[in-house]
Amino acid sequence: MRQSQLFGHTIKEVPKDEASINAQLLLRGGFVDKSMAGVYTYLPLGLRVLNKIENIIREEINAIGGQEILMPALQNKKDWEITGRWDIDVMMKVKTFFDKEYGLGWTHEEVVTPLAKKYIKSYKDFPFFVYQIQTKFRSEKRAKSGILRGREFSMKDLYSFHTSEEDLNKFYDVVKNAYFKIFERVGIKNKTYLTYASGGDFSKYSHEFQTLSSAGEDTIYICEKCGIAINKEIVENNQPECPQCKNKNLKEEKAIETGNIFKLKTKFTEAFNFKFLDETGKESLVLMGCYGLGLTRLMGTIVEIFNDQNGIIWPESIAPYKVHLVHLGNKETVIKEAEKIYNALQKEKIEVLYDDRDESAGVKFKDSDLIGIPLRIVVSEKTLAENSVEIKRRNRRGFEIIEIKKLVASIKQ
Amino acid sequence: MRQSQLFGHTIKEVPKDEASINAQLLLRGGFVDKSMAGVYTYLPLGLRVLNKIENIIREEINAIGGQEILMPALQNKKDWEITGRWDIDVMMKVKTFFDKEYGLGWTHEEVVTPLAKKYIKSYKDFPFFVYQIQTKFRSEKRAKSGILRGREFSMKDLYSFHTSEEDLNKFYDVVKNAYFKIFERVGIKNKTYLTYASGGDFSKYSHEFQTLSSAGEDTIYICEKCGIAINKEIVENNQPECPQCKNKNLKEEKAIETGNIFKLKTKFTEAFNFKFLDETGKESLVLMGCYGLGLTRLMGTIVEIFNDQNGIIWPESIAPYKVHLVHLGNKETVIKEAEKIYNALQKEKIEVLYDDRDESAGVKFKDSDLIGIPLRIVVSEKTLAENSVEIKRRNRRGFEIIEIKKLVASIKQ
Repeated sequence: MRQSQLFGHTIKEVPKDEASINAQLLLRGGFVDKSMAGVYTYLPLGLRVLNKIENIIREEINAIGGQEILMPALQNKKDWEITGRWDIDVMMKVKTFFDKEYGLGWTHEEVVTPLAKKYIKSYKDFPFFVYQIQTKFRSEKRAKSGILRGREFSMKDLYSFHTSEEDLNKFYDVVKNAYFKIFERVGIKNKTYLTYASGGDFSKYSHEFQTLSSAGEDTIYICEKCGIAINKEIVENNQPECPQCKNKNLKEEKAIETGNIFKLKTKFTEAFNFKFLDETGKESLVLMGCYGLGLTRLMGTIVEIFNDQNGIIWPESIAPYKVHLVHLGNKETVIKEAEKIYNALQKEKIEVLYDDRDESAGVKFKDSDLIGIPLRIVVSEKTLAENSVEIKRRNRRGFEIIEIKKLVASIKQ
Repeated sequence: MRQSQLFGHTIKEVPKDEASINAQLLLRGGFVDKSMAGVYTYLPLGLRVLNKIENIIREEINAIGGQEILMPALQNKKDWEITGRWDIDVMMKVKTFFDKEYGLGWTHEEVVTPLAKKYIKSYKDFPFFVYQIQTKFRSEKRAKSGILRGREFSMKDLYSFHTSEEDLNKFYDVVKNAYFKIFERVGIKNKTYLTYASGGDFSKYSHEFQTLSSAGEDTIYICEKCGIAINKEIVENNQPECPQCKNKNLKEEKAIETGNIFKLKTKFTEAFNFKFLDETGKESLVLMGCYGLGLTRLMGTIVEIFNDQNGIIWPESIAPYKVHLVHLGNKETVIKEAEKIYNALQKEKIEVLYDDRDESAGVKFKDSDLIGIPLRIVVSEKTLAENSVEIKRRNRRGFEIIEIKKLVASIKQ
């Protein structure tokens, strides 16, 4: 992509009400535009990042047998009355001109449970796992953390259905592993802890995935021995204790809840009377698990973690482009060589953003650092004299000089 | 995918209020589930089709320089008051518990115009073209045509911005061609006519793409000489006439509006005071075009066109799978060979749905015809005796016998 033609560009001033690092950097870098409080447009650069996160999640959830579906955002009032959740604050409510009322989905148990009930009858059909990657809506009264907590956001929600608690427990562990694979692929596994949180009505605990960040709204206590954490919300008597090894020497940290998994058991299947017939013809309630992962929140978390005073430092797996090609000055020879390299990279299917703008070196480097693409290639008169270009990694100091004829091979390594 | 594990399956009874062919076949085939009137869940088979349509559209719009973005569904009331469209019936309205009011997007001029205004200043930045593929919402009082006219649906909306009417006209023709490429790739080009329709306030005509179908809500008059049509809505004095060659011998047909393109000119840029500076430093209003294409409507149209009394006949480009592999009976040798073929096809990245269920030949063939995958491969004791399988194309009568060792090569042709 030629940067001169890219829709959206770096900006100097961000809205005054945006205090969070993720919002400031994403707005300044031209990744997102703020439409309203808690509501953002994803510009071409931002949408590329979001799509990469989406594909990583999709691959890992498909790998554990998840079947992708797409449920509607418009929700049936009747089904939310059945579970007693129609009047929960977070639900936005929709009205048509002919006075039909809907909810706007912030979670989908009230859709997926009656849906599964329609199609599934026999114990032979279990277990099964369905998920979607979809836009969700929430009445957040104070939307103040950029894309970490939006009123409209993208989420992966997976639901599993089982005939026994054993089977639910087994899959629950499978999902835990899949989540850590996702966190590993997007570069935040070493900052992410499986965290014990409140289990609600049916379990002692649920589990969250908490990623260490000063931007986090949660406080967690880490047990370094077990590699797990507990959420402050379940700490009793001000004396946190590891639920696994009873260790009381825990480390307090701020963290962002990047995912959560929950054994719903029969909470929703009972409400919708979703039963199965076992081998003996006996009816029992189906057991359920649900597993959330916010795509836009994950993107915001990554920005909170990977940045310096100059801008974002994208992990390669989700960077909008792999290479930022920059030419300095307007000499014909320089531009000609830069164009040649641009074409060569595209031919090799290496994703490249090409800063072909007529701007000073200072402006170009500043924008390049802000946008945060992993590899910067600089074409200038100086290095061309040696048939070379300069290569700079965004996450390292210093740069290398490399011969142009070796460039493509070196990038593809 | 093993059919025994596929979420969603064929059903015999469809909701009584679903009269349209597309809804009946898609519901019966297990492609969609009806959540409420005009609101559907896309099950795994249906989502695969929708994704293929989406990718074809994305490729063709990228090819003409469209830059993909993602705008929010939640719309700012203030911006819709500026254009005087806040109280249009089709807009669903959202309220939060703290009494914040939003519109739900059914089109995005009120978002994209102020957005572009923020980023674009100079004549050098023109023209540019941004689009999104996104879920839209409409207050349809009577949702009765299956996925042809939903209350929640998927749409591609492209917006172009220009400094002159000439340039707008030029791009308008580029989009026309891109639309016909899309219609060609999904198999309905020969039934789709560029159709003159009402131009609204600023043009004599706008253009629709109308696809012939008895399910269509529009009546068009076709000029076979020019290969174009006119919408009945603009016929004056009951005497339709070709706007190009003045031919009065036109053929009346029912058709579905599968796309529309519109020269908005300065309608929205004036409302938002979106101007550019030309070479001489003079300010002028930007010109706009908008170009819609409904993904779910396109999917419904294709089903309306490609079906017979037994079910859907998917064009190969958008079929959920390329091959439907079916084994007959429960003989171990048959199942073993079917499994071998299933693995071989997967290894070759040939998309295959494998009917591994313990059902009669009658049930399996009926389901296979209903689902409508282009190529059916039947493994049975009879043909195995000759080391062969039976191949049947969904869009042809009769079948071929082919040696198993030649199977993969023959499919890949």
